[in-house]
Amino acid sequence: MNRLNQIVDQIEDKVIAYRRDFHRHAEPGWTEYRTASLVARRLHELGYQLQVGRDVLADGERMGLPPAGVLEECWQRAGRQGGDPEFLEAVRGGFPAVVATLVCGEGPTVGLRFEMDALELEESQSPDHRPQQQGFASVNPEAMHACAHDAHTAIGLGVAEVLATLKDRIHGRVVLLFQPAEEGVRGARTMVGAGVVDDVTALLGLHLYSGWEFGQLDPGRSGFLATSKFDAYMTGAPAHAGGKPHLGRNALLAAATAVLNLHAIPRHGDGATRVNVGRLTAGSGRNVIPAEAHLAIETRGATTELNRYMADAARRVLEAAAAMHGCQLELRPMGEAGSAQSDAALSERVWAIAQELGGFTRRPPDSSRGSEDYTIMMERVQSRGGLATNIGLGAGTHAGGHHTAGFDIDERAIRLAVQLLAATSLHIMAGAER
Amino acid sequence: MNRLNQIVDQIEDKVIAYRRDFHRHAEPGWTEYRTASLVARRLHELGYQLQVGRDVLADGERMGLPPAGVLEECWQRAGRQGGDPEFLEAVRGGFPAVVATLVCGEGPTVGLRFEMDALELEESQSPDHRPQQQGFASVNPEAMHACAHDAHTAIGLGVAEVLATLKDRIHGRVVLLFQPAEEGVRGARTMVGAGVVDDVTALLGLHLYSGWEFGQLDPGRSGFLATSKFDAYMTGAPAHAGGKPHLGRNALLAAATAVLNLHAIPRHGDGATRVNVGRLTAGSGRNVIPAEAHLAIETRGATTELNRYMADAARRVLEAAAAMHGCQLELRPMGEAGSAQSDAALSERVWAIAQELGGFTRRPPDSSRGSEDYTIMMERVQSRGGLATNIGLGAGTHAGGHHTAGFDIDERAIRLAVQLLAATSLHIMAGAER
Amino acid sequence: MNRLNQIVDQIEDKVIAYRRDFHRHAEPGWTEYRTASLVARRLHELGYQLQVGRDVLADGERMGLPPAGVLEECWQRAGRQGGDPEFLEAVRGGFPAVVATLVCGEGPTVGLRFEMDALELEESQSPDHRPQQQGFASVNPEAMHACAHDAHTAIGLGVAEVLATLKDRIHGRVVLLFQPAEEGVRGARTMVGAGVVDDVTALLGLHLYSGWEFGQLDPGRSGFLATSKFDAYMTGAPAHAGGKPHLGRNALLAAATAVLNLHAIPRHGDGATRVNVGRLTAGSGRNVIPAEAHLAIETRGATTELNRYMADAARRVLEAAAAMHGCQLELRPMGEAGSAQSDAALSERVWAIAQELGGFTRRPPDSSRGSEDYTIMMERVQSRGGLATNIGLGAGTHAGGHHTAGFDIDERAIRLAVQLLAATSLHIMAGAER
Amino acid sequence: MNRLNQIVDQIEDKVIAYRRDFHRHAEPGWTEYRTASLVARRLHELGYQLQVGRDVLADGERMGLPPAGVLEECWQRAGRQGGDPEFLEAVRGGFPAVVATLVCGEGPTVGLRFEMDALELEESQSPDHRPQQQGFASVNPEAMHACAHDAHTAIGLGVAEVLATLKDRIHGRVVLLFQPAEEGVRGARTMVGAGVVDDVTALLGLHLYSGWEFGQLDPGRSGFLATSKFDAYMTGAPAHAGGKPHLGRNALLAAATAVLNLHAIPRHGDGATRVNVGRLTAGSGRNVIPAEAHLAIETRGATTELNRYMADAARRVLEAAAAMHGCQLELRPMGEAGSAQSDAALSERVWAIAQELGGFTRRPPDSSRGSEDYTIMMERVQSRGGLATNIGLGAGTHAGGHHTAGFDIDERAIRLAVQLLAATSLHIMAGAER
Repeated sequence: MNRLNQIVDQIEDKVIAYRRDFHRHAEPGWTEYRTASLVARRLHELGYQLQVGRDVLADGERMGLPPAGVLEECWQRAGRQGGDPEFLEAVRGGFPAVVATLVCGEGPTVGLRFEMDALELEESQSPDHRPQQQGFASVNPEAMHACAHDAHTAIGLGVAEVLATLKDRIHGRVVLLFQPAEEGVRGARTMVGAGVVDDVTALLGLHLYSGWEFGQLDPGRSGFLATSKFDAYMTGAPAHAGGKPHLGRNALLAAATAVLNLHAIPRHGDGATRVNVGRLTAGSGRNVIPAEAHLAIETRGATTELNRYMADAARRVLEAAAAMHGCQLELRPMGEAGSAQSDAALSERVWAIAQELGGFTRRPPDSSRGSEDYTIMMERVQSRGGLATNIGLGAGTHAGGHHTAGFDIDERAIRLAVQLLAATSLHIMAGAER
Repeated sequence: MNRLNQIVDQIEDKVIAYRRDFHRHAEPGWTEYRTASLVARRLHELGYQLQVGRDVLADGERMGLPPAGVLEECWQRAGRQGGDPEFLEAVRGGFPAVVATLVCGEGPTVGLRFEMDALELEESQSPDHRPQQQGFASVNPEAMHACAHDAHTAIGLGVAEVLATLKDRIHGRVVLLFQPAEEGVRGARTMVGAGVVDDVTALLGLHLYSGWEFGQLDPGRSGFLATSKFDAYMTGAPAHAGGKPHLGRNALLAAATAVLNLHAIPRHGDGATRVNVGRLTAGSGRNVIPAEAHLAIETRGATTELNRYMADAARRVLEAAAAMHGCQLELRPMGEAGSAQSDAALSERVWAIAQELGGFTRRPPDSSRGSEDYTIMMERVQSRGGLATNIGLGAGTHAGGHHTAGFDIDERAIRLAVQLLAATSLHIMAGAER
Repeated sequence: MNRLNQIVDQIEDKVIAYRRDFHRHAEPGWTEYRTASLVARRLHELGYQLQVGRDVLADGERMGLPPAGVLEECWQRAGRQGGDPEFLEAVRGGFPAVVATLVCGEGPTVGLRFEMDALELEESQSPDHRPQQQGFASVNPEAMHACAHDAHTAIGLGVAEVLATLKDRIHGRVVLLFQPAEEGVRGARTMVGAGVVDDVTALLGLHLYSGWEFGQLDPGRSGFLATSKFDAYMTGAPAHAGGKPHLGRNALLAAATAVLNLHAIPRHGDGATRVNVGRLTAGSGRNVIPAEAHLAIETRGATTELNRYMADAARRVLEAAAAMHGCQLELRPMGEAGSAQSDAALSERVWAIAQELGGFTRRPPDSSRGSEDYTIMMERVQSRGGLATNIGLGAGTHAGGHHTAGFDIDERAIRLAVQLLAATSLHIMAGAER
Repeated sequence: MNRLNQIVDQIEDKVIAYRRDFHRHAEPGWTEYRTASLVARRLHELGYQLQVGRDVLADGERMGLPPAGVLEECWQRAGRQGGDPEFLEAVRGGFPAVVATLVCGEGPTVGLRFEMDALELEESQSPDHRPQQQGFASVNPEAMHACAHDAHTAIGLGVAEVLATLKDRIHGRVVLLFQPAEEGVRGARTMVGAGVVDDVTALLGLHLYSGWEFGQLDPGRSGFLATSKFDAYMTGAPAHAGGKPHLGRNALLAAATAVLNLHAIPRHGDGATRVNVGRLTAGSGRNVIPAEAHLAIETRGATTELNRYMADAARRVLEAAAAMHGCQLELRPMGEAGSAQSDAALSERVWAIAQELGGFTRRPPDSSRGSEDYTIMMERVQSRGGLATNIGLGAGTHAGGHHTAGFDIDERAIRLAVQLLAATSLHIMAGAER
């Protein structure tokens, strides 16, 4: 461990600087052009083999893309803000993903996943907000790293450097997965669809939490709800509400019927289920029968099967509600995650290494009831016989919580994360161990 | 008119006796076996050509039939209560209808329609109730003539006798239509389907009203709402509400969704519409997902087209609500009426004759907002070039209203009705007039 | 009539120029600052006594006002576009109304009402659109005179000039009512509340219709539906839809329940009713229980009473739906109109004068099933013993219909309108006639 | 154990005869008059102190009582079928409960609970049905012991005899609780309200299951859902659906709105919840606005708190739905159970004794997702510092399941149950043990 600690000492400031640079140039889901291009450039320098853009993102499966105009604007901005010109070309059009591989002979394949996307949120202007004080608050409007993905990306570059430096100790293969659009659980499925984790035998993912005490570690998080995100568009026909109400096809009546019946989908005897219509917009003028309605919907379930039950029932409700009022229905998938469980065999190995490294305390397991599309990668790896775990690490501050404008982390956790992920990877790929 | 008045004088007591006999042996819709058999017997005696039972009721179209067991019980009772044995055979199984024809050379065909059915209502036991005082209250349980159809049937026999007696003054054809099951608007469509009014050139129908002053006459009533009556049966699947709610197919959720959306069918810009779910029964045990629901529904419209708009929309709502909750839907038609308007040419002729007869005052027209299946006969006659009118006549009392247990009429109105219908028929069929 | 015709000949071009100037500087409801200030200036020049702004608009009753910022921006623009500085001060803050009086001794008081507001609609850019060809298309974004109110205002100035010129023939009082915010039926109630029609004995209003043949006249339009426009705001509580759904207060569930039950308000036996939720927006993020909902609602009825029945029932539904889901409800009135009928005594007088003038054809009466807040002025006048009529005049073109971007009128109708209104006013106030 | 086994050998046939007698004279909830009177008579003979009827059932809290007429009819029948005349007086009017106490010096108080009620179910007439073959099928119509409560009552009498016989080995107090109306979870709360378990330090309840293999034992069942059963009555106003729909207060619209929104009560983040409207009946005639609606409702929750959340939300929905449609609401509680957990300290003691006795196999724990009002007794005992457990015992057959017409048990399980309960009671109250 001594050598590893030395390297981490040397790169810590650089990794924190990466994190602040990404924070300052926050890019929401599917527009992580600058981030991805700089990640790719750095990994190339470190000697990794790269797959960038379309090769690691199946075109037909990308969910929840922004409009083409927004994609292009953000791409232009990435150029102006110092993105790497060569790699920018490869990610243009909503393909900001990077997979980097280091092959060191025969052995296990360790996959490590890092998210790169920011939230569509205006960062706090408060003088108490540390990124403002230290000059790395986001310069991009309506874009802020308020869920620590900036740190995750930086950690990924740190781990990459450690492993590249120590590659003579490695027997096997390192696959670094830099994923776009985790928010809204949009990106993972597309990367999995492109086969990027098919050969992974041990998959590691790590998330920093500002609400946990510094150094608290849950080496195998569980309880994520499987989820489907989708939009429903109902289209009827307008009519003058005073003169010709019978000529209308009332998309709002269809939508209201759907909302009530979506919430009334029977509870499931086998476990927790959820449904929400987070947003409904319908109609135009007060005196016009509403001809259009748009519903932003999500279902969840304690297992992937329970979520499928909800999503299937939701589809049936929406189809019938539209038919009832003579409306057309279009459904667009917007995101998806599963309910994979961490493998104890792998998570306990992580915990053993953490104890060896020092600086960590074990956090009692809890159930998040949130969703995370890393589960889709876990499910694929597990279904092919590999192991996977989802690590949580405390980076506690007294600042605002995740997804709020005043979010902040304790940056010392970055070092802990680099240490832990690198050490675990080395441990798995150490020849002796096999 | 003198001769006509003489005859009416002679038969008045007999006609009132008919009415009281029918009242005492009240028979609800589709079970008017005794009534129809005695009507047929009497018309046969008067020399009319008869069609009885299946010949004037298309089997496949009968709506709202009672269960077979009830039909048979009532038929047995009709035998015990003095029904005519010969004609009882002809009406067995739910076919209590009589069409009687008197042909007197060339000339117009005058149709006259009389209803025979009672309501499913227990007659008042009050000593103040005149039928109790005078011993002609209904002896049949849950059966009462509370809408004057007993009087209408008696009036029909009276008119029949007058016209038979004066047949040498007639040039043309008299068709007397004794209809079952007007309540619930069930009987007329079936008779029309059998072609019984296809040759009629002038159609007369008359209704007594206990709420109108004695002798008030509306010679051409309008404003009846077209209506469709139907039952909806939804069938899902039961399940234990605690353990396996997801295995249920909730017919009550489907029904509740339908009820709300039936009432929310858009109002129509062209005129009045109505919808009602008069009765809903669903489910079984408290802890079982309801697997069955039954809805008794009606739609109405100011015109036949408006009612069709409502009935079509109702069907769409019911089908979609059932599909939404994975239920099967069965719809059974239970009744139907149109919105025909009286022809002024005919109704003003009625009024002219009424003035000549004396004893009538003209009632200002009103809109009933009720429904009446005589409209279906009117529509058929009018569609084939004939004229039709719907006459209202006041038979006011201080007793209870129509469809209540204390209903009663002023029986002197029976004489007025016989006079008016016979005189109008004679006038139309008088050779000179043509 | 000769003298009147001479004057109209002289001013016709000027009046059309007025109309085009108003068209070019279209101002939507409550922002008719420039229009009102120029109208006031011109009427002052003609010798009318003026009441402008707050005096004729009760502050507390103004419904459907734009936000304060929009009001101020539009007021600044009115200054830049040549509004009259003196009168602009009087109308600032959303008070663009003018009442002008000409007193000519004793006699009847004739009120004439003219609307001044444009629609929030972008005018057609098509080269086929006549206002584009002739250079008077609206220069203001999202503002277009697509319902002929520009012409109505100009007609008002024309009538004012004719009557001022012929004031020696007048015995009585002329009251010209220039009203803001007719669209959305917002302005009339506030002016009526300020008492501006309390002394009127004969009230005239006129509307041009592009869909009627040129010169067609309905001197007494009827069938307007009474209406209430209001907004409902439901406020619940947000919560994470995965983790804490039970902590939410779901404003969308409340709104959906309200939408269904608003449409299910029982039809009324006494006549036509309507309800519409023209627009619903609710919620924010997909994974957040919706905490806010906004519904834009209108009710209508064939009479003011029927509309009140609907509005009362709607309030009850909304209150209960909010309570059901633990939400707060706020209702804001946004507009109101009644169902007043034109007085035949007055409308037939208009028709007699039209025949005398020539150039008009009588249009068969129809029922509009629309709404118009002029009815509130009519109801007030009629309730105080005066007469009122609502005149429709054809100004047909082959251009787009009312409320569309390509709307246009045949400007020759302006002359007909000035003639008819001035002649009728003179006729009513001619001493001999009294 | 030898002495205990001897006694059980001696009484086994008698206890089975008891069971068959109760089975033959099945009495549904709150009408267990004959059963209770014979139980009281037998316990009196055995020397127990008795409390019968009102003393152990708080009058105001009895839920889900049949109508007074039914109560009286069943009481008369109990007399005719050999009920004990003295004790019948004590239970008249719906008070068929017995608490019997045996005091044997100082020591713990062991409570044992036995249900006495049958189901409202017609017993199978099949010749394959063993109670038919052996002549003990129910002679009471619509009444059948299809949930083994007949056996439970008999077991209670057997345990009573064993303990009375061995009372010199007992240091403490035995309290036998014979409860009415467990079906519908109606009886326990009322007995608890009367204080009958307030002094109990160890509470035992046992249920036979026909679907478990013979001899399978779960010494501490868990997972029962807390539940509230209640009826809602909505009362509006009728009106003719064609003529005066606006005069109605539509109880069916209120009920349908409630049904949808009850099912849409938000899922709870802390655990499983349930709601069901098992039955809805509303309305009368097809053409009448429904003035009455009756809903049979239940809520459930994984904990008593979760059930309270559901029941509170349900009440809010029902109140608002009634108010929305101008209806009155009456809620009547019909049953209640909690979610108590068995105490491992006690259940493992039961298991240890079972192993000693022999003849039992341990069944893996499962979650029932049903409800049981014994939980209310458990909660009371536990809240006062006592221990409680809920024992399940297999009495498997190939006959029909619980709550079906062909239900049957393997009667040999009765002996096992008597042994186990008596041995456990003796063990707890053995002086040495303390």
